[in-house]
Amino acid sequence: MNNPWNNRRPSARPPRATPLPREAAATPPAGRGGNDELRLFGVNAVVAVFNARPQAIRKLYLLEAQIPRLQPLLKWCVANRVGYRVVEDGDLNKLAGTTHHEGIVADVLRAPVLPLEQWLQQLPEGPALALWLDGVGNPHNLGAILRSAAHFGVSALLLPADSALGISGAAARVAEGGAEAVPLVRLPGDVEALAQLRGAGFGLAATLVEDGENVFNATLPQRLVYVMGAEREGMDRGLARQCDLSVSIPGSGAVESLNVAAATAVLLAQWARAR
Amino acid sequence: MNNPWNNRRPSARPPRATPLPREAAATPPAGRGGNDELRLFGVNAVVAVFNARPQAIRKLYLLEAQIPRLQPLLKWCVANRVGYRVVEDGDLNKLAGTTHHEGIVADVLRAPVLPLEQWLQQLPEGPALALWLDGVGNPHNLGAILRSAAHFGVSALLLPADSALGISGAAARVAEGGAEAVPLVRLPGDVEALAQLRGAGFGLAATLVEDGENVFNATLPQRLVYVMGAEREGMDRGLARQCDLSVSIPGSGAVESLNVAAATAVLLAQWARAR
Repeated sequence: MNNPWNNRRPSARPPRATPLPREAAATPPAGRGGNDELRLFGVNAVVAVFNARPQAIRKLYLLEAQIPRLQPLLKWCVANRVGYRVVEDGDLNKLAGTTHHEGIVADVLRAPVLPLEQWLQQLPEGPALALWLDGVGNPHNLGAILRSAAHFGVSALLLPADSALGISGAAARVAEGGAEAVPLVRLPGDVEALAQLRGAGFGLAATLVEDGENVFNATLPQRLVYVMGAEREGMDRGLARQCDLSVSIPGSGAVESLNVAAATAVLLAQWARAR
Repeated sequence: MNNPWNNRRPSARPPRATPLPREAAATPPAGRGGNDELRLFGVNAVVAVFNARPQAIRKLYLLEAQIPRLQPLLKWCVANRVGYRVVEDGDLNKLAGTTHHEGIVADVLRAPVLPLEQWLQQLPEGPALALWLDGVGNPHNLGAILRSAAHFGVSALLLPADSALGISGAAARVAEGGAEAVPLVRLPGDVEALAQLRGAGFGLAATLVEDGENVFNATLPQRLVYVMGAEREGMDRGLARQCDLSVSIPGSGAVESLNVAAATAVLLAQWARAR
């Protein structure tokens, strides 16, 4: 038996940390399992996967100091023959590609990205809110948007057909567990996406830095998609013209705009407060 | 004449970049002028200082590619004998201590932090909104809060007597110019601060992750101070008990809380929408 993975019952006296096998220490942050796997870090990001879909966890690396608070997760790993290893802080820095790992790194299977049609079929009747991300690229903004979206009960993040956006380890850490609460949905082309969403009773609101209706006075539909644009360029103007309404968050003019994640939080709150 | 600083009129053919003097290249990001100076980076952060208080600019380093868009600033530097230098990207990385400099670094005098009494004397009559930062430490959160505060016309950020919080280059960059629009105010001890703020007609709202009044239903005073707590610990419970009301942003429970910058944006919007 030369298994570097610890499948034993967690105990108060954990195994001593040993050097990582060379290929693990040299692994880039993306994880070893190709595009189906994601390398997560941060306690809330990892615990959220454990709570939502524990079978997605493939491997776990953690500091000894994290063992007491993670007993349920570690017991599950032992019972389900998922390897975990107690390692040093420097190993986690290498595995995560950042020092912001909070003492835990995990390789997990990605949650599936649903086709729009399938998501609409599953969606319960009644009020619903979704975000169409038209050009949001920064992983910190994506993570911040996911956290706020989870807080306000957003039903999905909608990704354009050609968007390369996906959950990264950095986005999931910033989301503090929110990435597991809000499904990602892949849109078909814009025309088809608009038709399907309208067919399901959604109204689409373009979000503009200026020239939109004051969102604090707007009547928002019960089923709403906010279309959020890129941080600097804003959303595509052609797409904006095809939306059912356009909204802006009035401001002092002292800065050009709100950050896209702050704007998203304000817009989500504005919808949520009326439900 | 062996002046490394370019005080000539900016032209389409700038001087060639030369290696930085050793002491400049080795300077830590905090700047060379001690605690009175701040090393800024990011176009909007630097341009905001130029617009608000150009005489605070001490030195400027920029990429050649930034010259056309920064003509007014560079002409001002020439006219006022403020040195600027055209440098390479790697030099800016060293000067800023980060690659997020957007092609410009500036050493500027810090804006003064006002004593509470002085700020209250200057404050116009009528509605006013301020943020009391009780434990916010992360520069990215501070920067994000400043940007939203500037957008919603916040009158000041109030810093507790013992707070080490101040504007850093990273915070100013994330604020996108908002740091120049919102003054920092130093509070005396809590008891005295509460008395002075109440004497000026302010009501204080504690902001809690849970157990506060639903902020969407709350009646907020015309002159309001939101007390914002630290990201993980929340605000000091003793201070919360001394506030006039306590508010929370209701959520799904899918994440523990909103990020403090997102929560701030939502709370500011909630006050601003009613004005």
